[in-house]
Amino acid sequence: MAMVQALVLEKKGELAIRNIELTQEPGPGEVKIKIDTVGVCGSDVHYYTHGKIGPFVVEAPMVLGHEAAGTVVELGVGVTNLKVGDRVCMEPGVPDPNSRASRIGLYNVDPAVTFWATPPIHGCLTPYVVHPATFTFKLPDNVSFAEGAMVEPFAVGLQAATKAQIKPGDIGVVIGAGPIGIMVAIAALAGGCAEVIISDLAQEKLDVAAKYPGIRPVNITKQKLADVVDEVTDGWGADVVFEASGSPHAYDDLFRLPRPGGVVVLVGLPVDPVPFDVSLASVREIRIESVFRYAHQYPRAIAMFASGKVDLKPLIAETYPFSESVAAFDRAVEARPSDVKIQIRLD
Amino acid sequence: MAMVQALVLEKKGELAIRNIELTQEPGPGEVKIKIDTVGVCGSDVHYYTHGKIGPFVVEAPMVLGHEAAGTVVELGVGVTNLKVGDRVCMEPGVPDPNSRASRIGLYNVDPAVTFWATPPIHGCLTPYVVHPATFTFKLPDNVSFAEGAMVEPFAVGLQAATKAQIKPGDIGVVIGAGPIGIMVAIAALAGGCAEVIISDLAQEKLDVAAKYPGIRPVNITKQKLADVVDEVTDGWGADVVFEASGSPHAYDDLFRLPRPGGVVVLVGLPVDPVPFDVSLASVREIRIESVFRYAHQYPRAIAMFASGKVDLKPLIAETYPFSESVAAFDRAVEARPSDVKIQIRLD
Amino acid sequence: MAMVQALVLEKKGELAIRNIELTQEPGPGEVKIKIDTVGVCGSDVHYYTHGKIGPFVVEAPMVLGHEAAGTVVELGVGVTNLKVGDRVCMEPGVPDPNSRASRIGLYNVDPAVTFWATPPIHGCLTPYVVHPATFTFKLPDNVSFAEGAMVEPFAVGLQAATKAQIKPGDIGVVIGAGPIGIMVAIAALAGGCAEVIISDLAQEKLDVAAKYPGIRPVNITKQKLADVVDEVTDGWGADVVFEASGSPHAYDDLFRLPRPGGVVVLVGLPVDPVPFDVSLASVREIRIESVFRYAHQYPRAIAMFASGKVDLKPLIAETYPFSESVAAFDRAVEARPSDVKIQIRLD
Amino acid sequence: MAMVQALVLEKKGELAIRNIELTQEPGPGEVKIKIDTVGVCGSDVHYYTHGKIGPFVVEAPMVLGHEAAGTVVELGVGVTNLKVGDRVCMEPGVPDPNSRASRIGLYNVDPAVTFWATPPIHGCLTPYVVHPATFTFKLPDNVSFAEGAMVEPFAVGLQAATKAQIKPGDIGVVIGAGPIGIMVAIAALAGGCAEVIISDLAQEKLDVAAKYPGIRPVNITKQKLADVVDEVTDGWGADVVFEASGSPHAYDDLFRLPRPGGVVVLVGLPVDPVPFDVSLASVREIRIESVFRYAHQYPRAIAMFASGKVDLKPLIAETYPFSESVAAFDRAVEARPSDVKIQIRLD
Repeated sequence: MAMVQALVLEKKGELAIRNIELTQEPGPGEVKIKIDTVGVCGSDVHYYTHGKIGPFVVEAPMVLGHEAAGTVVELGVGVTNLKVGDRVCMEPGVPDPNSRASRIGLYNVDPAVTFWATPPIHGCLTPYVVHPATFTFKLPDNVSFAEGAMVEPFAVGLQAATKAQIKPGDIGVVIGAGPIGIMVAIAALAGGCAEVIISDLAQEKLDVAAKYPGIRPVNITKQKLADVVDEVTDGWGADVVFEASGSPHAYDDLFRLPRPGGVVVLVGLPVDPVPFDVSLASVREIRIESVFRYAHQYPRAIAMFASGKVDLKPLIAETYPFSESVAAFDRAVEARPSDVKIQIRLD
Repeated sequence: MAMVQALVLEKKGELAIRNIELTQEPGPGEVKIKIDTVGVCGSDVHYYTHGKIGPFVVEAPMVLGHEAAGTVVELGVGVTNLKVGDRVCMEPGVPDPNSRASRIGLYNVDPAVTFWATPPIHGCLTPYVVHPATFTFKLPDNVSFAEGAMVEPFAVGLQAATKAQIKPGDIGVVIGAGPIGIMVAIAALAGGCAEVIISDLAQEKLDVAAKYPGIRPVNITKQKLADVVDEVTDGWGADVVFEASGSPHAYDDLFRLPRPGGVVVLVGLPVDPVPFDVSLASVREIRIESVFRYAHQYPRAIAMFASGKVDLKPLIAETYPFSESVAAFDRAVEARPSDVKIQIRLD
Repeated sequence: MAMVQALVLEKKGELAIRNIELTQEPGPGEVKIKIDTVGVCGSDVHYYTHGKIGPFVVEAPMVLGHEAAGTVVELGVGVTNLKVGDRVCMEPGVPDPNSRASRIGLYNVDPAVTFWATPPIHGCLTPYVVHPATFTFKLPDNVSFAEGAMVEPFAVGLQAATKAQIKPGDIGVVIGAGPIGIMVAIAALAGGCAEVIISDLAQEKLDVAAKYPGIRPVNITKQKLADVVDEVTDGWGADVVFEASGSPHAYDDLFRLPRPGGVVVLVGLPVDPVPFDVSLASVREIRIESVFRYAHQYPRAIAMFASGKVDLKPLIAETYPFSESVAAFDRAVEARPSDVKIQIRLD
Repeated sequence: MAMVQALVLEKKGELAIRNIELTQEPGPGEVKIKIDTVGVCGSDVHYYTHGKIGPFVVEAPMVLGHEAAGTVVELGVGVTNLKVGDRVCMEPGVPDPNSRASRIGLYNVDPAVTFWATPPIHGCLTPYVVHPATFTFKLPDNVSFAEGAMVEPFAVGLQAATKAQIKPGDIGVVIGAGPIGIMVAIAALAGGCAEVIISDLAQEKLDVAAKYPGIRPVNITKQKLADVVDEVTDGWGADVVFEASGSPHAYDDLFRLPRPGGVVVLVGLPVDPVPFDVSLASVREIRIESVFRYAHQYPRAIAMFASGKVDLKPLIAETYPFSESVAAFDRAVEARPSDVKIQIRLD
């Protein structure tokens, strides 16, 4: 442990760069990483503005940040998959590898997971972090640190796309064109959909999404989403539908969108229980999938960035120096509709 | 068409055996079947007592009955899979084989399906019916007509068990020990579960279910279902959970029962939308499946009866002659808790 | 039936445009289509050069061609999904919709399938054909006839990609860069792979494939495929491997390419049985999938062409007028390595 | 480490109880178990008679035995899932929980797995063993030690049944009624098959299998297996076929047995590559699965024994005291056809 600089959330609304005691020595199987770029996530912002997310409450000062890329500077005992100088990105959640959930491959739903910037675990907005080597992934030369810091949010999209079990040529629908909705839409398209219809009521968000060929924007202040789905699918319905708005209103028509035997993937989390029309889902034998963060998606996201299949650089709205981290968060709080991602560079 | 005897529901509450005009000549690809046994289903009873089920309203006299077995007495042109004298049971739903849903194997969710005793389609409580040969299935010698008439309700259980994608040795839970719940429990056990926990508040129903080894009854007036699941699974949760009560209260705890990565199959149909806690489902990445009747289950049910793997004869509470059909229905309306199935024999 | 012009294969090696008697009147559920473009497939060429493919022997004059697009000019009784003037492409295989295989959604393996230009069924290299409306698919305005005639070969690629059950971000390998190998590689990439490695010994074929970003060519006269797979996957192995060469030599190393738990999809058909190392496959628990033509892929291919996700126009090497059909076939027989597709335009 | 008694294979053919140095102190996360019962497996016998299995060669004295049950007598630091006195059985393969294969849930194909009685790892035919607590499973009160020692071989059957993805009511076929074939047949039946046809040429083996209702024996010296499958399935083919003989001759007809879209699971390991008819498999779009030992099956096997769904006690032919272990192995070498399992009891 050592006193080092970090972006610390003292409590709701109180954010500053200051010294704090953090682990700086890699233990067995761990690496020390010099952080280069950290993305600002909606959850970081939510802790800043509300001091909690659901059951997770900020009760002690906590370093923010969990979308990070950097360079390995020191290896703990027994690390063989990485070497000093490797450019890497890090998976912020670390499970117990021997838990029952981990053993069946579902390490993301292991109740023992610790996750950066989820109370009481410190995040990575600090010059150096220590992390398990097995959750640290090498970046190919043609993937920048900025892209490396986009692996985390894109992994959320890939998890949703994976759960959907997309078949090549499926027609997809994404409800909500916020940052997560856009990630899901791009992941669904890269993951096999022929076309993805995305809906929102903010035209600026739709304009960002529509820059990606194959994504068809629907402004629900002007068109009914169900009408567009009917038109595109000749009345049959979409193969896969992603609910990424978290709005309870999305549930009104949700089960009218998929085709018979189609799937709805629930990505957005409504605060309260939503009304669920079981009969409507049943008459088409809809499958419903839920997701929690992601598992096994880092290598997949990196491979897609490296091959050029997916390019998320256009989504980075602005990059702030570490010294202006609070400004970066304040910008994110106000969130212009076209801001998909704000990043912070260290050094 | 010819005037023949049948059990006709004139309208809500008005049921009688009388003459009615029904098709008696098999067309191309059809067979004529002499009906032997017909089971009384909850939906038949519901039309009798309420005159409708959801959007399906009895607006004209309708013959009841859709769980039937009998003997082929005449072949239409082009029938090759059956011969006169074959003992058979019939799938009551007939889809358009060229529809988009049928083509992908989901003929049960084809909107064009016609289904016996679902308005305005006549059922089979009449001495002879005409039916497509491709939806008429031969009974092996060791499967009785009474069992043949149980294929239909068991197919509902098999559809739920199939959707669950049970892995050998899964621990199952069935909420609700009514006739459908019991079918689901037996199907889940035969379909690969090591054990099935079934819950209800009527002890008589649980007693019927518990006669099947491997089914563990839970009287929820005495024990909490979640506690029993925890005990059996060492706190891990059930692999597959079937909601077969249709009660909105079942949803209170529903997503606490499955293990991480587990599945909930919705069999019961609550009348109104139920509150759905998306966060609770998501934190364990629960998959939710819905079912609508069944598809492809008849040969599977028959094979299970023929091999002796599944024996539903103990569930037949009483058999009435056709002439006492109205009495059979009145018995079913009052439904002693231990009555799983009432049947009617013709001739 | 009427006497009409067509490209007729009399027997092995004897091909000419001549008059032949063909059905020209649409029956119930059928449409009459004016053919615009027909692709020349390797199987057409093989019948020309060998007079047979496996058990299928040309024993009577047969019209060639099965990759076709055109315009609906007449509707049979009961057709509602199409109208006169619709631009369409046609699925050449027509199953019995009531067969057991069709009912479970596997109409392609229905033994009763009739397939254009597979003896004794006539193909479509003739000005007008009659075809079931349910196997005739409307082309969007932005999909040309030339592309419409590419739907058939691309459907083969999509079938392989579908069977692989690609997860978003998988690393794929395709052995063999012939026309089918290229279709598979493009389909696998569009179907979710992050990158596809394709191998061949003909550099010209690899050069065609490599024009598609995300496809990495491996000339096996210069590099070992297994070495490239190891390098790309850090020694882990590919997620999905497609054998599209049909060469028995491909089987020497085949099961060394996939990762533990990976899949091998067999697309190429070796003439004789190949040696299969069960132990080698087992030690990694490899899944092996086989494919036969395709099912349900036409709407998916069309959607991919329409959205711009997949562009196969660069693969069309040359287009001949119908009057020069024999020259088109002779060109295809000699097959320059870079020729992926030769097409014939009628009128 | 301490000098303790054990059944030691010095080299091919040389087997004796003698003192050998073995670990007796549980490390962190480990438990010490007093062995009660050990089953003799074909692989143990093969090392005895041949000194090797494939690439695994006995090059130093090795303790045999890997099918074991016993009682926990000491806990290492940090063990919480077990307590002293617990009756348990042990999974003999121990992977690296952080390996790439383990992380995706496929720990059985982790190349780093160590496995009891697979050179150079000692087995468990010794009074006390030390084992990781996470691969040690508590036995319910109603599961005996003898049954506990049957969990390992039954896990092999369950792995095959799981890979088959049996749907409730499938018709199964198992080729070969040796110990593994019988395990597979029972697992397939318990795992959802309506009926399992098992074939062999030794009538005594078939007689043992046929004691289980739902298993239909076929003596291939008297009947063709394909004929029986045709008769049972009305010419359609079996849903799932397990090759458990390891005989290359089994491959002659193998792909004629499954139905269109069916699956073949390869359990037996032929010594040399076998001829594989790709065309024959493809024309029915057969899926082929391979298995390597098992993963995640211990709790499932135990649950099936505990619920009474599966009873393997009738398969235990004879039990020898530890002091007569060599005699037990000599009996197993001669293997009467009806001997499915020989066990050894310690103390």
